[in-house]
Amino acid sequence: MRRYVPPLQDMQFVIERVLGAPAQWPDLPALADHDIETARHVLTEAGRFAADVLAPLNAVGDREGCTWTDGQVATPAGFAGAYRAYVEAGWPSLGCAPEWGGQGLPHLLEAAVQEMLVSANHAWSMYPGLLHGAYACLAAHGDSALKALYLPRLASGEWLCTMCLTEPQAGSDLGRIRTRATERDGAYAIDGGKIFISGGEHDLTDNIVHLVLARHPGGPPGPRGLSLFLVPKVLPDTGERNAVYCDGVESKLGIRGSATCSMRFEGARGWLLGEPCKGLAAMFVMMNAARLGVGLQGVAHGEAAYKHALRYARERIQGRPAPGAAEGTEPVPIARHPAVHANLAAQRCAVEGARMLAYWTAQLLDESEYAPTPDQRRDAHERLALLTPLVKAWCTRAGFEVADQALQVFGGHGYIEETGAAQALRDSRIPLLYEGTNEIQAVDLLVRKIVADGGAAYGHLLDDLEAAARHDGRGLEQQAVQLDALAAHRRLLAGLIRESAEDPGYPYRAADDFLRAAALLCLGRWWLKVLALSRGDGAAPRGKAATACHFFDTVLPGIAHVEHRIRCARRALPDLDDCD
Amino acid sequence: MRRYVPPLQDMQFVIERVLGAPAQWPDLPALADHDIETARHVLTEAGRFAADVLAPLNAVGDREGCTWTDGQVATPAGFAGAYRAYVEAGWPSLGCAPEWGGQGLPHLLEAAVQEMLVSANHAWSMYPGLLHGAYACLAAHGDSALKALYLPRLASGEWLCTMCLTEPQAGSDLGRIRTRATERDGAYAIDGGKIFISGGEHDLTDNIVHLVLARHPGGPPGPRGLSLFLVPKVLPDTGERNAVYCDGVESKLGIRGSATCSMRFEGARGWLLGEPCKGLAAMFVMMNAARLGVGLQGVAHGEAAYKHALRYARERIQGRPAPGAAEGTEPVPIARHPAVHANLAAQRCAVEGARMLAYWTAQLLDESEYAPTPDQRRDAHERLALLTPLVKAWCTRAGFEVADQALQVFGGHGYIEETGAAQALRDSRIPLLYEGTNEIQAVDLLVRKIVADGGAAYGHLLDDLEAAARHDGRGLEQQAVQLDALAAHRRLLAGLIRESAEDPGYPYRAADDFLRAAALLCLGRWWLKVLALSRGDGAAPRGKAATACHFFDTVLPGIAHVEHRIRCARRALPDLDDCD
Repeated sequence: MRRYVPPLQDMQFVIERVLGAPAQWPDLPALADHDIETARHVLTEAGRFAADVLAPLNAVGDREGCTWTDGQVATPAGFAGAYRAYVEAGWPSLGCAPEWGGQGLPHLLEAAVQEMLVSANHAWSMYPGLLHGAYACLAAHGDSALKALYLPRLASGEWLCTMCLTEPQAGSDLGRIRTRATERDGAYAIDGGKIFISGGEHDLTDNIVHLVLARHPGGPPGPRGLSLFLVPKVLPDTGERNAVYCDGVESKLGIRGSATCSMRFEGARGWLLGEPCKGLAAMFVMMNAARLGVGLQGVAHGEAAYKHALRYARERIQGRPAPGAAEGTEPVPIARHPAVHANLAAQRCAVEGARMLAYWTAQLLDESEYAPTPDQRRDAHERLALLTPLVKAWCTRAGFEVADQALQVFGGHGYIEETGAAQALRDSRIPLLYEGTNEIQAVDLLVRKIVADGGAAYGHLLDDLEAAARHDGRGLEQQAVQLDALAAHRRLLAGLIRESAEDPGYPYRAADDFLRAAALLCLGRWWLKVLALSRGDGAAPRGKAATACHFFDTVLPGIAHVEHRIRCARRALPDLDDCD
Repeated sequence: MRRYVPPLQDMQFVIERVLGAPAQWPDLPALADHDIETARHVLTEAGRFAADVLAPLNAVGDREGCTWTDGQVATPAGFAGAYRAYVEAGWPSLGCAPEWGGQGLPHLLEAAVQEMLVSANHAWSMYPGLLHGAYACLAAHGDSALKALYLPRLASGEWLCTMCLTEPQAGSDLGRIRTRATERDGAYAIDGGKIFISGGEHDLTDNIVHLVLARHPGGPPGPRGLSLFLVPKVLPDTGERNAVYCDGVESKLGIRGSATCSMRFEGARGWLLGEPCKGLAAMFVMMNAARLGVGLQGVAHGEAAYKHALRYARERIQGRPAPGAAEGTEPVPIARHPAVHANLAAQRCAVEGARMLAYWTAQLLDESEYAPTPDQRRDAHERLALLTPLVKAWCTRAGFEVADQALQVFGGHGYIEETGAAQALRDSRIPLLYEGTNEIQAVDLLVRKIVADGGAAYGHLLDDLEAAARHDGRGLEQQAVQLDALAAHRRLLAGLIRESAEDPGYPYRAADDFLRAAALLCLGRWWLKVLALSRGDGAAPRGKAATACHFFDTVLPGIAHVEHRIRCARRALPDLDDCD
């Protein structure tokens, strides 16, 4: 069985030193009660819960999966008990507002906790995974009666919730949704079918709160006719079962312990959340939080897979050292073989870089909500809007690629399910798909958030990166690498925006690569900070500075080829073979 | 269910036009009877068998897997029947010598047939997959009695065979093998355990011929004490059951219809193949053929996954075209979205490039065996030795990456097992691991086959590439791209060989990237040929020339970053985190 050991040292290093977050909390009124001690306590306890309670259920959850019988869904053995323990320990309320029973902790700490839960057991973490997003959506859009009724139960974890968007004909294109609402008795009746609903039915809580995107009565066709409705499984006032049913669970590549449900609404009673026909906007409050959460899943998978492979590589004796190596000629653990060592070093660089990106974004989420002035909140929000799709796509790809590289370390044993590396590969693949595929994130970033405003907001982010490079990089040879890359990127961006006006298809073709380039530059910012810190009091973990050098030597220079491809995307794409 | 449509048009284009193989057969005496008509007939019939008989069993084989009961293994429903049909149609004898009942067809055609079988059903293809390698090994190393007894049964497919190498403590490091042979009654008794034995037990044939690597009596420890033994499941002379038993089958990530067995030899009767203590060399005859076969599996997975995704993308209506696109504003198939189109175009380029590499290598195998003069055979063999690990590692990585990109085209539906894209991802992962991991291929290429002879043989291959570029690239702008890349590569190689003398660990650290660079240059050779052909009589498939341009525009330039990383590998690698 794959163990999980929380990476507390690196988490603390990133939160405390790289991002300097606890030092910032006294200036954010809502977070002023929290400090380094809170942070360390939360991480230690969450790490213990993840390692002791969740990790032991990871393999069994995958083997057993969920079973559907006559509309009921049984989760794998131990899942419900672990959820009770989670609720009793007060974990669901972590990031919720104190007025609704929450603990009001920084989103950054919630992010670190989320990483640990997913590393230990991604499938299990799906059940409470949407709690906070639903909580935020309801807090922003619910009327006071709905809030009073539902928020305390969500904050406590007494009830769980879902996000019901997808239909067979409406995946990325939500404008095709057919599920419809009709007014009835001061509320709404919802009719239609939804698919791919995580936690649509299960045996963890007595009630499940569905947030459902459906056509508003009399609304226009397409996405502008959609409203968001709250549809509980059980009506809280009467205790009556609502007309929402689970017709089956999917057999999936991974996260098999998470129930992915087909749902049927047959005149189910629902309440409007937010304005009529503004469902997409209301839902995006939830979706944006969810997208950061999905990015963190990538970090989590990378972390768990890398450490799993590292432990194995240190135990597995196979082959002799390369000739002339200092180790002599006796058989050695494979971690000492240069090819394996290089593979593991690349994994470490990918995981720790992704962690800095995702945690930075969580820090910006805190600033966007809690910074004292509107200007500060607006600035943070502007960066957050850019970084959310970037983190979602980059970190999930990194997590899957590390899981793939980690599996390779196990050789043939990696292909046997018993080892656990195969499950990691399977589980880590879903984050690239859900909450908007990675391609949709890239289009969101480049087309909607960069080209649309002529690069203004993105220009501010690049200014931040440049200022940071000038400050943190003083006296470092890597400073020039980062500054040169930034300058080249600005030139590319100017051309891209200009040419997109004439060829609107160009940014769509270039979007995936553009997101990669942007991510590399953001990574450069934080690896430079790591180098600056390493030069200082030596508080960086072992090998950290060398890993930062590895990034600037071997990873960042790849941006030249990525940007070359962005330029090539001006040309039309080749026809696809159609001989069959 | 995923259909399979054989890519006959591209196969014929590569075999007939790009490689010009049939035009060459009259000069290779053993192949002089074959021509374009033979080739087309074989491909058409094999394609029909793959599509009609094997493809319908692919999903069911994955669902059912193999079941082990008291030492017996039941393959999935339909597998045994399909094998009978395969034998009756004469497919096993395709590449075997006429003197042993074979058809003596070019290896190149066998390779194309192999690709089709794997595209349709990788798990099933594992059973006959080693037939030819075992046949070649026995033909090269068996005495006349063994040959007379076994070769006709292998050529006809009446009996199947295995390659028994791996033990729990001996994976990549075969020197750790413990299974031992003792002399008994003019033959040997074999004792020990083997794992990961594909087709070690099944219900397809009455007898199974195991080729077993074991310690020779009195031999030295390590790899030089190993001999190769032939150990039949049933003793042909007496019909008696030999003491070789299957203790279980593995639960694997993919190719679940292929029985991966743990085998126990308890004084099983075996016969020596080749010289005592020369087992590794004898086994490598089989292993090299197997490695090319594994590379072809990568091509096969890429082909099947790309076409599956292409069909889906042409049917799935979702979203509107990019603003300003010629298609108007109505919903369109996702294949018309630029991001999806770009993804599919990259897949096509990867698959068709990998096919050219693998088929070229199969053509060199024909030349190395059948060319009229010893010099010609030696030259072909020299290239073959370099290209075998390259094709194994590059094509298998390409196949998996295409399966991954193809899955992405399906969005969330790709994660549901029913769609078939998930099975493709799982099945396509094993070729990167077995028959020597891809990292071992890279070390084989760079350390053993390039650095060891000071780059002499590899220099001849580069000369070929340069001559081809000068000839095929005349008047093409891409000629300079290829020639410049070749010149830069030669400079890099000279430095690498020089520095490896001082730092023997360097080529081990650089090996993976070096293999990538070499593969890109080999691909450049053939895509240039495609451009030359496209300029001619227009016989190239639709979009082919544009795909070649896509390669030179966006893929080949990546070699600069790959070679930059090779240079960086001179530095020591960072320490790995050891906080847990």
